Amino acid sequence: MSIRIENDTMGPVEVPADKYWGAQTQRSINNFKIGGEKNRMPIEIIRAFAVLKKAAAFTNAELGVLDKDKAIIIGQVCDEILEGKLDDQFPLVVWQTGSGTQSNMNANEVIAYRAHVLLGGSLEDAKKKIHPNDDVNKSQSSNDTYPTAMHIAAYKMVVETTLPGIQKLRDTLQDKAESFKKVVKIGRTHFMDATPLTLGQEFSGYVAQLDHGIKAIKNTLPHLSELALGGTAVGTGLNTPQGYAELVAQKIADISDLPLITAANKFEALAAHDAMVETHGALKQVAVSLMKIANDIRMLSSGPRSGIGEILIPENEPGSSIMPGKVNPTQVEAMTMVASQVMGNDVAISIGGATGHFELNVFKPLIAANFLQSARLIGDACVSFNDNCAVGIKPNNAMIKRHLENSLMLVTALNPHIGYENAAAIAKKAHKEGTSLREAAIALGLLTNEQFDEWVKPEDMIGSLK
Amino acid sequence: MSIRIENDTMGPVEVPADKYWGAQTQRSINNFKIGGEKNRMPIEIIRAFAVLKKAAAFTNAELGVLDKDKAIIIGQVCDEILEGKLDDQFPLVVWQTGSGTQSNMNANEVIAYRAHVLLGGSLEDAKKKIHPNDDVNKSQSSNDTYPTAMHIAAYKMVVETTLPGIQKLRDTLQDKAESFKKVVKIGRTHFMDATPLTLGQEFSGYVAQLDHGIKAIKNTLPHLSELALGGTAVGTGLNTPQGYAELVAQKIADISDLPLITAANKFEALAAHDAMVETHGALKQVAVSLMKIANDIRMLSSGPRSGIGEILIPENEPGSSIMPGKVNPTQVEAMTMVASQVMGNDVAISIGGATGHFELNVFKPLIAANFLQSARLIGDACVSFNDNCAVGIKPNNAMIKRHLENSLMLVTALNPHIGYENAAAIAKKAHKEGTSLREAAIALGLLTNEQFDEWVKPEDMIGSLK
Amino acid sequence: MSIRIENDTMGPVEVPADKYWGAQTQRSINNFKIGGEKNRMPIEIIRAFAVLKKAAAFTNAELGVLDKDKAIIIGQVCDEILEGKLDDQFPLVVWQTGSGTQSNMNANEVIAYRAHVLLGGSLEDAKKKIHPNDDVNKSQSSNDTYPTAMHIAAYKMVVETTLPGIQKLRDTLQDKAESFKKVVKIGRTHFMDATPLTLGQEFSGYVAQLDHGIKAIKNTLPHLSELALGGTAVGTGLNTPQGYAELVAQKIADISDLPLITAANKFEALAAHDAMVETHGALKQVAVSLMKIANDIRMLSSGPRSGIGEILIPENEPGSSIMPGKVNPTQVEAMTMVASQVMGNDVAISIGGATGHFELNVFKPLIAANFLQSARLIGDACVSFNDNCAVGIKPNNAMIKRHLENSLMLVTALNPHIGYENAAAIAKKAHKEGTSLREAAIALGLLTNEQFDEWVKPEDMIGSLK
Amino acid sequence: MSIRIENDTMGPVEVPADKYWGAQTQRSINNFKIGGEKNRMPIEIIRAFAVLKKAAAFTNAELGVLDKDKAIIIGQVCDEILEGKLDDQFPLVVWQTGSGTQSNMNANEVIAYRAHVLLGGSLEDAKKKIHPNDDVNKSQSSNDTYPTAMHIAAYKMVVETTLPGIQKLRDTLQDKAESFKKVVKIGRTHFMDATPLTLGQEFSGYVAQLDHGIKAIKNTLPHLSELALGGTAVGTGLNTPQGYAELVAQKIADISDLPLITAANKFEALAAHDAMVETHGALKQVAVSLMKIANDIRMLSSGPRSGIGEILIPENEPGSSIMPGKVNPTQVEAMTMVASQVMGNDVAISIGGATGHFELNVFKPLIAANFLQSARLIGDACVSFNDNCAVGIKPNNAMIKRHLENSLMLVTALNPHIGYENAAAIAKKAHKEGTSLREAAIALGLLTNEQFDEWVKPEDMIGSLK
Repeated sequence: MSIRIENDTMGPVEVPADKYWGAQTQRSINNFKIGGEKNRMPIEIIRAFAVLKKAAAFTNAELGVLDKDKAIIIGQVCDEILEGKLDDQFPLVVWQTGSGTQSNMNANEVIAYRAHVLLGGSLEDAKKKIHPNDDVNKSQSSNDTYPTAMHIAAYKMVVETTLPGIQKLRDTLQDKAESFKKVVKIGRTHFMDATPLTLGQEFSGYVAQLDHGIKAIKNTLPHLSELALGGTAVGTGLNTPQGYAELVAQKIADISDLPLITAANKFEALAAHDAMVETHGALKQVAVSLMKIANDIRMLSSGPRSGIGEILIPENEPGSSIMPGKVNPTQVEAMTMVASQVMGNDVAISIGGATGHFELNVFKPLIAANFLQSARLIGDACVSFNDNCAVGIKPNNAMIKRHLENSLMLVTALNPHIGYENAAAIAKKAHKEGTSLREAAIALGLLTNEQFDEWVKPEDMIGSLK
Repeated sequence: MSIRIENDTMGPVEVPADKYWGAQTQRSINNFKIGGEKNRMPIEIIRAFAVLKKAAAFTNAELGVLDKDKAIIIGQVCDEILEGKLDDQFPLVVWQTGSGTQSNMNANEVIAYRAHVLLGGSLEDAKKKIHPNDDVNKSQSSNDTYPTAMHIAAYKMVVETTLPGIQKLRDTLQDKAESFKKVVKIGRTHFMDATPLTLGQEFSGYVAQLDHGIKAIKNTLPHLSELALGGTAVGTGLNTPQGYAELVAQKIADISDLPLITAANKFEALAAHDAMVETHGALKQVAVSLMKIANDIRMLSSGPRSGIGEILIPENEPGSSIMPGKVNPTQVEAMTMVASQVMGNDVAISIGGATGHFELNVFKPLIAANFLQSARLIGDACVSFNDNCAVGIKPNNAMIKRHLENSLMLVTALNPHIGYENAAAIAKKAHKEGTSLREAAIALGLLTNEQFDEWVKPEDMIGSLK
Repeated sequence: MSIRIENDTMGPVEVPADKYWGAQTQRSINNFKIGGEKNRMPIEIIRAFAVLKKAAAFTNAELGVLDKDKAIIIGQVCDEILEGKLDDQFPLVVWQTGSGTQSNMNANEVIAYRAHVLLGGSLEDAKKKIHPNDDVNKSQSSNDTYPTAMHIAAYKMVVETTLPGIQKLRDTLQDKAESFKKVVKIGRTHFMDATPLTLGQEFSGYVAQLDHGIKAIKNTLPHLSELALGGTAVGTGLNTPQGYAELVAQKIADISDLPLITAANKFEALAAHDAMVETHGALKQVAVSLMKIANDIRMLSSGPRSGIGEILIPENEPGSSIMPGKVNPTQVEAMTMVASQVMGNDVAISIGGATGHFELNVFKPLIAANFLQSARLIGDACVSFNDNCAVGIKPNNAMIKRHLENSLMLVTALNPHIGYENAAAIAKKAHKEGTSLREAAIALGLLTNEQFDEWVKPEDMIGSLK
Repeated sequence: MSIRIENDTMGPVEVPADKYWGAQTQRSINNFKIGGEKNRMPIEIIRAFAVLKKAAAFTNAELGVLDKDKAIIIGQVCDEILEGKLDDQFPLVVWQTGSGTQSNMNANEVIAYRAHVLLGGSLEDAKKKIHPNDDVNKSQSSNDTYPTAMHIAAYKMVVETTLPGIQKLRDTLQDKAESFKKVVKIGRTHFMDATPLTLGQEFSGYVAQLDHGIKAIKNTLPHLSELALGGTAVGTGLNTPQGYAELVAQKIADISDLPLITAANKFEALAAHDAMVETHGALKQVAVSLMKIANDIRMLSSGPRSGIGEILIPENEPGSSIMPGKVNPTQVEAMTMVASQVMGNDVAISIGGATGHFELNVFKPLIAANFLQSARLIGDACVSFNDNCAVGIKPNNAMIKRHLENSLMLVTALNPHIGYENAAAIAKKAHKEGTSLREAAIALGLLTNEQFDEWVKPEDMIGSLK
């Protein structure tokens, strides 16, 4: 590998000759060989840095502390990053300094040196036309840029991937609730047979869960919309021009098309990441809901012969070359694994969030990486589950009917007609002898076939008394 | 122990002669010897049952399905429970059936049998004038009463204990932020010396954290205000009179003086406890905040000689008979233990919440017990921390001044006057030789005593550029 | 309430006249009003203090630093504590100083003052004949006594409650595995029908899980057997006589009849609680196993008509006054709630364990309380589950047979006789038409009734090829 | 992209023409668009599949159920996989079917089709010379191969990366403990000044933690060494030749050079992953230890002027262009983020482990991915922390001396000479007036300069009484 030499205040460092990054990025590569490629700083954070570096450059120019031409070229490189053209220039891993300083410097260096090249310079030039710190990082500190990038990336992922994914699944379940609204089936409590309800009612509970989950996530967005930028090193805004924080937040909002604002209290925004904890808490709530919903669907579709089997789910992959009819609920399995992951990530984020000290929380990359994984997994898994499973769910009417007819608890309907004691006697006899309620009732001479038909109507047991 | 015999559908059971409870409560005592006294069903749940049983009785009377006199005597016993007169009648533990059925029956039995005694009957009477199921439990199922009791108790604890406790501490910290607003001190990032800020600014971050936490908790209350009652066994409302759900929720709201409403979707309200998960998620967020705040106070008050020592906290207990001046931050320690507990409880609640099946979640008592513990601990710990620590926090001005004056990073202020290179030379010399910046600067002949006084003013470094 | 005045180095404190505790206990009561009675320091910790205080007194006497008579009277009070006679003298809560100093002083004060009374003194005496610090706490510090009490109590609970409970359940499951070894039934993977196994094989998996769990717990006991006592304030053993640590550990082992030893490294023993984290990790593993086992039993016993219903569990409580035959798996529910709690407690303990600083971890009471709860809950729940559920489990042979006969995957057995293609055709036809394999096979003319009987023998499918 | 058509029992699928995978791999790609590239099945699992497929092929050949030539060519492709030549042939993500069936089929297809090409065939051939199921997957099921691959990969990572990493750091800390054994310094309990110890003693505690952690991990390895292979679909070993399980385990052990054995109970090995839960529990314990150790080092090295500053850590990256001497403890930060991640992963794994049903746990890829991440992160982070931080730790003798001399608790040493009351008077005066003990003592006329020198010797306070 061909190399060149870059310098920082600690001296010279060997850098791959063809890479835009500089000494500080390279020091991080050298000093943090932890976890390998899969543990790279999420690309969403890199893109968010591009948004904020561009916004900062133009704000600095507008407030008179940066040359306008410099702002323009910085903005141009940021656009390249946003287009994905420089993805291979961001090699650092999550497990670096907890402020994300090294990723901030990675962004500063790549932007400055790429700009230098765009301006006709060479990477070999000792002095570049754009300076990573003095120009690209102007009016900024890692301490306020990294949390700003976190919020931009997190907010974007939540509104563009997570919420639409949940909504899509919710809408499908709502359609199912509607189309299943006349499918009367046995209810189950304690995993045991209970009084009936409709399959539509059962699905309406899932819809209500996701509706509440969507609301819960949205409730957290105002906190997440607050940006730390303008706080610089410790939250005081040292070395920023007047009006900077508000203006740069406005520009970030414009560039990202997200309703982001400057944080009311910059000390909180650097020293704590409660906003990330808060939104991820809502993601975890949705994971809890999805675990419940997916488990129900797994169990309702179990069988084909020896399970509950009241719904049919799409057959997407060969189950087994031996057993036709064996449809594994693979989308359920992916979904419940995702839910488990999100519940684990919530603990990692909470510990990271709780362990800040004084003016700076230094668990930022951990928090960002776990949050973005959860937010994406929920969104992706909802879409996958929706498209490959939920849309194709159908009632297995034969099985539903058989369960309903066999059910002993329909006896409840007889109470007003023959009294509880007699009804109980029927149920007990049927249970003991393994017969139907009808058979037991007639054998006991307590009612006729016709009376049974008239009085035992599950479809009248699915709402409150009229 | 003198005993009497009570019966249920499974036959006779020996019950202590002097207790109001009946066969089903006793079966639970006999069958669930798990955890002992400390694991009893929270008394707040028992009280909440009293509220809902009273509300249900009067609703049933009003809707014509229960004799008015019966409602009155039921209400009277409920009042006794609310006054704490019958606390020893609720011996069951959390680790019972996951629907809380046995605690519901405990309430039904105690209310019915105590009412029977109030009406002149004897506990020895085989037949009681009020029936646990037919009267006290009328239009109800364990499946909708227990979650209703959970929400009543949880809501009440949050608004009466948790939120006021947090608010109290928040207000004290706000007072401190105000009174410390001119105390300039060194900042710390990465646990290392950084540029200055005021002690007031540092505390303002804590206030912002708690303000956000309070808001986060309040955001969850609408979901928590939804009551399952009226759903009965599986959410359909089987065996309830028309209009029951809305009316009973209204009465519960009146009796409890809490803005509780009937759940929009009863299937969700029985089968999932996302509302509990949601609010506890916000409690966990506050625990995360409190951990950060308390840790800072622990570290800022460390010493007295060999720590950071920038604040003084009240001396509440003898530290050691040998070491005067050793004030242990005991309130901090209680607070951080509470925060850890809440973070653990959040996992237990999430797992419980995620593991419901079909029409009923059967992790209800687990969820209730963990939630109520967290909500109370946060409230209590905030008050304890406030009264015994926060209100007495004072700046240790001598130490703050010494740290500030010693600080090498004040050199930043010299950049505009003597240039970065010269400033860096001063800082490096001071660091290497262990001297002050002033000494190094003068030794290097770069500026005079007077210039140092004029240019190095930490109090000008605590806000953005004017 | 009648009061008396006690003094400590901070001055006078009002104490209830009839209580043995002194000023420092009372200050803790006054300063830590957190969580109420349910949050009292576990009684097992109090008892463990009695063991160690007695051992320390006799060690001090033997090593010549405490008057023998004083040791005798201290030992006498410790015996009273161990007999449970002084339980109401330990009012402090878990949420106090994180070193447990106040509970150590509670023990010191109660022992000293009770000894004073036993020696003929009065609680009103300003000067007591036995001094809480100079005599009872001699050669000790809270910093080494509290963790010693933690280990004594934890070890005792694990070997006397947890392990016997798990073993009892394991033995019952082993009996079941043995008696069910010829019950051939359908297997289920992905919650879907699969090839057969015996019910005994299924239960043997549970036995293997618990065997591994017991081994895992036992693996951790050597670490847990290490006692901090002798480390005093920071681990150096300042102010202890030579040979003290080893001798006092020996006496603790004798008194408690547990194989406890002095910690090889006292610095670790004070500053970290990895031993508690380690053993609780194994408890959590068992919780994970119990969750799996209990869930299986819940699902296998589901029904009675519309579930899987392959096993019958004891009917312990009335399910519902309406639905005979509805046996709720209440022991399963208690068990799975316990498992969830232990998984939550594991997080609380891990956070507490990770957050020690320098020479002392100050999350000790949190760790102790969560550990003891988990250890007891697992033990108790296993016994409860065993006695009230596991011992009574029976196969539901009719249902097992029906599922097995209906099963489509028995077709696998035909592969060697008629080839995979023909076998698959049979299975597909049966699945599509909802018939049995036999019916489909005969309809297709691929084999006779007799051949079906000869070739399709599930009992030959439950082991590897012979 | 050029495509070809592959078929499975569900029909034709379009596959990239140049890839070795087949229809079932492609279906998984199409149906599980969750999480993207970063969420790919860990490469360690793929390699472990190569080990087991090779072992299975040779075992099948040896037991006479597979043609020897087929075994040889299968083994040859497996070697290519082990050499990393086919990494781009394994595109599937973790979030697929929970049995890992699709990754098993990915291995089967790639091995079969690559073998076909090696044997001179073309990927376009409709019929391949080696069959993914009949040959490569012979005597196997996804249900026993995936957990076998999990154990191979996990065991390998633990013994080759995790344990050596911990050991390396442990050895360095042991060296430090040895070289610091005469550096007397102030101790800290409750984060407050306490009696002295040596820096070596402090570090010896860290060594003890890691020694216990290493032992804890090793204790779990026997369980982890058990392989599921031979259990096939449900644990019965259906369709395996006699002696297969033992022989294939032996071959896997030989190929991998790891002491792996066949699982005693195959039902447990498929249906539960307690072995993974168990070992990860020990990894989590080490994470807890590392969090404590790293935090101590962060705090001990804090400063340079306004912190504790008793140790110096290597300066690896520029802290700030303004503040020379600001060395951020970046390795500490990476380490504590890793510890938080492992604590979160432990929850995800525990939930996954607890949620198996009947004969199969379907959270396998989740468990594998989290486990492997934790095991690698701990190993890598220990090496990084060791090489870039721990080896360079030095005592800051000036600061250590200053803290020690300033310390008020050295007064303890005067108790035997002038009595506790007089000693306390000295300490109180020094604390109140901010002077040294010596100054206060002399001012009070209680002892001379020479007596102070003779009696107050911190170096005599670091062990038990002689």
